[in-house]
Amino acid sequence: MPATSMEELVSLCKRRGFIFQGSEIYGGLQGFYDYGPLGVELKNNIKAAWWRANVYERDDMEGLDASIIMHRQVLRHSGHEATFSDPMIDNRKNNKRYRLDHLVKDQKADVIAKVAEAMGQSAENFPAVVAALNASPAQASQALKDAGVRDPFSGEVGDWTEPKPFNMMFKTTIGPVADDESYGYLRPETAQGIFTNFKNVVDSTSRRLPFGIAQIGKAFRNEITPRNFIFRVRELEQMEIEFFVVPGTDEEWHEHWLERRLSWWEAQGVPRSKIEILDVPKEDLAHYSKRTYDLMYDYPTLGHEEIEGIANRSDYDLGSHTKNQSELGLVANVEENLDSIAKLTIPHPETNKPVVPFVIEPSAGVDRALLAVLSEAFTKETLENGNERIVLKLKPHLAPIKVAVIPLARNKAELVELARSIKNDLQKLGLGRILLEDSGNIGKAYRRHDEVGTPYCVTVDFDTIGQSGADRGEDASLTGTVTVRDRDTLAQERVKISELTAYLQAKLK
Amino acid sequence: MPATSMEELVSLCKRRGFIFQGSEIYGGLQGFYDYGPLGVELKNNIKAAWWRANVYERDDMEGLDASIIMHRQVLRHSGHEATFSDPMIDNRKNNKRYRLDHLVKDQKADVIAKVAEAMGQSAENFPAVVAALNASPAQASQALKDAGVRDPFSGEVGDWTEPKPFNMMFKTTIGPVADDESYGYLRPETAQGIFTNFKNVVDSTSRRLPFGIAQIGKAFRNEITPRNFIFRVRELEQMEIEFFVVPGTDEEWHEHWLERRLSWWEAQGVPRSKIEILDVPKEDLAHYSKRTYDLMYDYPTLGHEEIEGIANRSDYDLGSHTKNQSELGLVANVEENLDSIAKLTIPHPETNKPVVPFVIEPSAGVDRALLAVLSEAFTKETLENGNERIVLKLKPHLAPIKVAVIPLARNKAELVELARSIKNDLQKLGLGRILLEDSGNIGKAYRRHDEVGTPYCVTVDFDTIGQSGADRGEDASLTGTVTVRDRDTLAQERVKISELTAYLQAKLK
Repeated sequence: MPATSMEELVSLCKRRGFIFQGSEIYGGLQGFYDYGPLGVELKNNIKAAWWRANVYERDDMEGLDASIIMHRQVLRHSGHEATFSDPMIDNRKNNKRYRLDHLVKDQKADVIAKVAEAMGQSAENFPAVVAALNASPAQASQALKDAGVRDPFSGEVGDWTEPKPFNMMFKTTIGPVADDESYGYLRPETAQGIFTNFKNVVDSTSRRLPFGIAQIGKAFRNEITPRNFIFRVRELEQMEIEFFVVPGTDEEWHEHWLERRLSWWEAQGVPRSKIEILDVPKEDLAHYSKRTYDLMYDYPTLGHEEIEGIANRSDYDLGSHTKNQSELGLVANVEENLDSIAKLTIPHPETNKPVVPFVIEPSAGVDRALLAVLSEAFTKETLENGNERIVLKLKPHLAPIKVAVIPLARNKAELVELARSIKNDLQKLGLGRILLEDSGNIGKAYRRHDEVGTPYCVTVDFDTIGQSGADRGEDASLTGTVTVRDRDTLAQERVKISELTAYLQAKLK
Repeated sequence: MPATSMEELVSLCKRRGFIFQGSEIYGGLQGFYDYGPLGVELKNNIKAAWWRANVYERDDMEGLDASIIMHRQVLRHSGHEATFSDPMIDNRKNNKRYRLDHLVKDQKADVIAKVAEAMGQSAENFPAVVAALNASPAQASQALKDAGVRDPFSGEVGDWTEPKPFNMMFKTTIGPVADDESYGYLRPETAQGIFTNFKNVVDSTSRRLPFGIAQIGKAFRNEITPRNFIFRVRELEQMEIEFFVVPGTDEEWHEHWLERRLSWWEAQGVPRSKIEILDVPKEDLAHYSKRTYDLMYDYPTLGHEEIEGIANRSDYDLGSHTKNQSELGLVANVEENLDSIAKLTIPHPETNKPVVPFVIEPSAGVDRALLAVLSEAFTKETLENGNERIVLKLKPHLAPIKVAVIPLARNKAELVELARSIKNDLQKLGLGRILLEDSGNIGKAYRRHDEVGTPYCVTVDFDTIGQSGADRGEDASLTGTVTVRDRDTLAQERVKISELTAYLQAKLK
């Protein structure tokens, strides 16, 4: 049974050291999160699984790691300067600022109904209400006041301004002179680094179509109202592929990637049955998109929200960043580019004539992936003895700690040293983190490792070193063996130390 | 023989897809670099080797991944707002701005000598000259003009302003309102995320002293004059450890870490003989440092430059970020902190009384590490046939591609399919990237893989599939075998396909 509420996930994340509020000791910074000792392992494991599946296990992919701060021309020609914005609205009474759709969505049902009616829309179709508010700013301001839309901060009905667009890119001055030209942007998506390096990658690898470029990295969005834990944040991490194909084969490749990505999610423990495929209606498509599938995962509390977008972006991106646009027979409607110094074409594999490829973009969020993986793994069980336990049934390749090696007593040097040597041997297998769990309380250790999803606990006890207590009599056959406890079945098995690495390697493969 | 000049490294990096100039198609952005298909693998391998050695193979370390954008209070109390600056100087003639020490260092020897003399210093002791210029801005301005210091842009003697400090942190507005309080900084070092999470990590892991927190991540420094390829950049990546110890044991731990880090560099192919240990003189120490070792690697062209700093930071950092400072008996001289909401102490392991630990900080740059590793691996050899080859003798665990599997002819489906299946089997070993090298030109493929440091090439030829040419007659004993070529020895060995995974696994261990 996966998590039933976001609260239980948030609480576990904080308690066990997965995720902390950013800059917490100074009151926190909204929309920024720090990944703790277990969070960093889980995140790294998700990224490694993605890289393995999309770069290593394919023969048509290259990797990339571009810089975060980019030239303003990149974000101008990508269209972000003009269009990467959300509508915001101010309350004149207290100068608080809100994202328009979030503000309205959080009102009581009767208030939303009044706003919808004033805008000539049905409250059932919320996106249409928001679109109408954006389209008629003056009418929107009046409608909100008349409907009695309350300020979430003060709780009182606000004196609402007209909504206006707010660009969500973080801007910063580069170099020692702050003038109109000396600024750049923190990239709002990793994708642009791929497009601007298209020619570099082709030239250095001799790739021919079809092939893709994959990248994992941070992206930044100055959300007006960050919310829902790590779901909507200002600093996020993305795993993006831009897959370049011969125009005309794009629809087939779009289906290929939909299939591949769903099967990847399944392998991470996020089943297809929990993902709704939204074939984005034509009227809601971004202007560059020919067709987009949004994978909507059913998060606890939040409901269906986007976990990945798989877009057919036509030749919009390379077409926007290339020079000599008019000679290239572009399909997409692009803005004129007189700044680029590169021609972003590649020989057509059959005709050898230069062509601007179409792009299929599977774009997933690392933080949202982590939240989905945690949510699916989260399990509350009642044991036979009536006790309740929380256990994270993570796939072993994602578990932050693969094996915990536990000496039964922390003050018994012989046990601790043997445990340490077993830990060192297991570590050499290269499976990930193996922990020497030297807390001295076996019950607490098991509970902790259930909650953080450690697949196996190995306990070194007095039997192991041939010193079991006098009350039970010594069982010589247990000397040189340890107890291996299985997280999911709770089965405990005695395994010879000499066979332990092979045993666990097979289990964790 | 390692690289003898930076130019040959830069040229290889660009040609083979290791590193590209950031935002290149828009003329480039100074101080920003993008890592290409091979660069991202090399960088990831270096980071993984560091994480393995410092987190996985120790029993006293936790990992962390904190956010890049931080609360302004963090960087205020860390001391960065006040002191993280370089002296800059303007040329009034063309409004160009330079970093003072870089400007003077790049002048001809006689000009430097005149500046030194005017400031009452010896040109031999350049740091003292810079210190004197900073200490007397008015005199400095005059000295530079009198000595005839030229503007590197115009080539003419400049009309120099007084030097003044330039804060190197990138600043950005957070949230939709741009006012005096709504900004944060891109962290100038990852370390601060560790200090601010000290309590969170202790609470969630029950760690006791001594223990450390390790982090890898981007940091940003608005260098006035970025230079020397990826050596001095504005966006960099760091691998930092903050190791917390009982005061009094700090000197011993400082030596421990010096030893550990040198042996890590050795394992990455950067020998001790190329690293000078600079025991930073007392008068040059940062105000928080009790003692610092700078590891100075002998870069080609650049000479000895810092590759890692290992500092004994006393109790300055936690002492600066804690509340109730006056009750804690701090040794370091810290600014008053009325903003922090957390008490950053931990029980003394013997007395159990709360103590602010001392910190040993081994701090290395990923980009600088990559440059050193590349430089050591770079080899130009004259072969027996008189040809010259460039080969990267990277340690196998760092090589971007572990094995290239090469079908001898690209248009022979049987060869290509067999090569693909061998590649897939090798990929399952989890060693890293295995490449299907399907270019159809074996000589070119070998040259390419020498240059990018691929330890082994596996060639699937007509013998492999029992179809050797009629001219040589078929040697049935070669059927089912492939040629394995060793990058360093150039030895070629026939190996049975059935034994290939075991063979290469042993070699690449």
